[in-house]
Amino acid sequence: MIYLDNAATTFPKPEAVYKAMDEMNRKAVNAGRGSYKTAHKMSEIISDTKQHIRNLVNTDAETPVIFSPSITVALNQIVNGFEYLDNENIYVSPYEHNAVARTIWNVSKKHKINIIEMPLNDDLEIDIEKLKYEFSKKKPSYIYCTHISNVTGYILPVDKIFIEGKKYGSINILDTAQSLGLIPVDSQKIGADIIAFAGHKTLYGPFGIGGFINISRIKLDPFITGGTGSDSLNLDMPSGLEARYEAASMNMVAIAGLNAALKILDQQSILKHERELTEYLVNGISEIKGTRLLCPTNENNRVGIVSIVLDSINSDDAGIILDEDYDIAVRTGYHCAPYIHSYLKDTDKMGTVRISVGQFNSTRDVDELIKAVAELV
Amino acid sequence: MIYLDNAATTFPKPEAVYKAMDEMNRKAVNAGRGSYKTAHKMSEIISDTKQHIRNLVNTDAETPVIFSPSITVALNQIVNGFEYLDNENIYVSPYEHNAVARTIWNVSKKHKINIIEMPLNDDLEIDIEKLKYEFSKKKPSYIYCTHISNVTGYILPVDKIFIEGKKYGSINILDTAQSLGLIPVDSQKIGADIIAFAGHKTLYGPFGIGGFINISRIKLDPFITGGTGSDSLNLDMPSGLEARYEAASMNMVAIAGLNAALKILDQQSILKHERELTEYLVNGISEIKGTRLLCPTNENNRVGIVSIVLDSINSDDAGIILDEDYDIAVRTGYHCAPYIHSYLKDTDKMGTVRISVGQFNSTRDVDELIKAVAELV
Repeated sequence: MIYLDNAATTFPKPEAVYKAMDEMNRKAVNAGRGSYKTAHKMSEIISDTKQHIRNLVNTDAETPVIFSPSITVALNQIVNGFEYLDNENIYVSPYEHNAVARTIWNVSKKHKINIIEMPLNDDLEIDIEKLKYEFSKKKPSYIYCTHISNVTGYILPVDKIFIEGKKYGSINILDTAQSLGLIPVDSQKIGADIIAFAGHKTLYGPFGIGGFINISRIKLDPFITGGTGSDSLNLDMPSGLEARYEAASMNMVAIAGLNAALKILDQQSILKHERELTEYLVNGISEIKGTRLLCPTNENNRVGIVSIVLDSINSDDAGIILDEDYDIAVRTGYHCAPYIHSYLKDTDKMGTVRISVGQFNSTRDVDELIKAVAELV
Repeated sequence: MIYLDNAATTFPKPEAVYKAMDEMNRKAVNAGRGSYKTAHKMSEIISDTKQHIRNLVNTDAETPVIFSPSITVALNQIVNGFEYLDNENIYVSPYEHNAVARTIWNVSKKHKINIIEMPLNDDLEIDIEKLKYEFSKKKPSYIYCTHISNVTGYILPVDKIFIEGKKYGSINILDTAQSLGLIPVDSQKIGADIIAFAGHKTLYGPFGIGGFINISRIKLDPFITGGTGSDSLNLDMPSGLEARYEAASMNMVAIAGLNAALKILDQQSILKHERELTEYLVNGISEIKGTRLLCPTNENNRVGIVSIVLDSINSDDAGIILDEDYDIAVRTGYHCAPYIHSYLKDTDKMGTVRISVGQFNSTRDVDELIKAVAELV
């Protein structure tokens, strides 16, 4: 199988991740739930993994890092953790994933909030000037922004968006599912108050671990409640800046895998490699007549992910042929991104064919894909 | 290490679980998110695992089984999924875990509901006659009941409780964290509408997978929202009886581990073994002066877990000595069970020393523990 669906989950993971998980599996007990040595060791591995995450976003050792079973759960904890006031304006980029979009939509059924999509220009990039004007008219209370689109690979100008929002006191939430570990995320410069992350995508960790970094130590209502192994007689969640949001047993096996992934993560090399592959892919596809490329035209503003639409065939059908006749795994459809397709104008083709590369792909993989697409159209 | 903390997580897991997880890790892609063969195979493994769960509770192939990252998340989905009316009575057993207790408490801050603890008799067992009287005075709308206490190993008479509640039309939720895979859970007889389960405890699966079986197909509000790989343009969660509650990528590695665990689960043998070990433990401890046994006196009503309190020493200190001087892992404290300690009268000793056995423990392990406790008092 030629795997070009790395935006769904990176595959394979580094061998060290598999090894660390298997080793942990054979010694994993419940962290922080017992007073014995092995339970303490589990807690140390958790702390060490969190410190790697802090280093990656350039924040100090005191910044709370909350582990959740997935970035979806983390984003639910965040979105549902705020106390929204009537008529507050919630800005979202049109590139949001359903982990944000559906969750805010769900919140809007219970609270009188206004969900506002940020404006795009003709290149389908955020129109910063128009956005500034929007902000001045309708003050942003919250801004949710994905860092890299999981449909087109577009790198959103989150620093510009967030810093502009801060002029109005907005709370800024960054979704790094497709960016952390691939492109720099500097919490000192980017203006994000909370950064959500996924373990199993650009960080090359396993399923079962994600979370959020609470840069500005914002107090959220605990969304998921349960046992924390501490203060058990208290029916309220503990007040600790991490424990408050960490009910249930920690998934030690997934954390060990993420730990191993973070230890060997070489962001600069991966970025260089993915940029080269992305450009190679874009150039190859753009020479095939009957295909429409859906990614930013400015190559500095894209990486890793490219969507295409074929004139001759629905995207789902294209995906099936790529799989069955060429053994190439891509993803087709709408990619859990509800807003952007009205801009991409791809609904007559049932969404896009998404090609997403990872550190283990080669130009040969891209060659095979291009050859197959050329035969398809 | 002599591991006697199986109620926190069973350890070790069967070798087949480790192998299945490592193998899956090396081929795991994202289930149901791609149209390629491997993604389909992932979906098949999910379906097969769910069918094992259905078989275990004796329900038909149409019954929705929802996978969640943990039983804590599952219980949050359930407790927060109902639309509570003013003044509804929510019955809970005094043996509930904080995954239920804190979550209902949290709900009670937003809704005018009455949380009522079920009455206990002098043996600290549910007083069914008094409960019947309570039900007649205050009609039960919801009944939350754990199947086996994670503090004392008490097997609650859930069938009697639930069937009595059904006379008043109650919705009955069973927490099988400590029971599924160990004692029979027959959904045809037990009167439960929803059964929540944990993968990593009595089922001998890994961390990262739990869920609930929606026996009565009760429509819950989706609590966690996000991408489902389907119907992506719709901001509401899909209507499918499982998909509606299954946002985010499935943890395929954990599911593969649970699948392997379920394939080889031999409930009858494990139950026989744990019953023998439990009685052996109870007999041994009861001969040591200066210890107080906290478990049902009727041996038919207990299994797997025994708590003790030592006259001479706080439970936490006892746990540390057992670890450091004897390399025995037990758990001490309140075990995330907030209500029961006022009945157990153990707060002056900082909770209990909990000893919990599993299928891989032997009488020799129990001998070591008894010897150590005898030296401690």
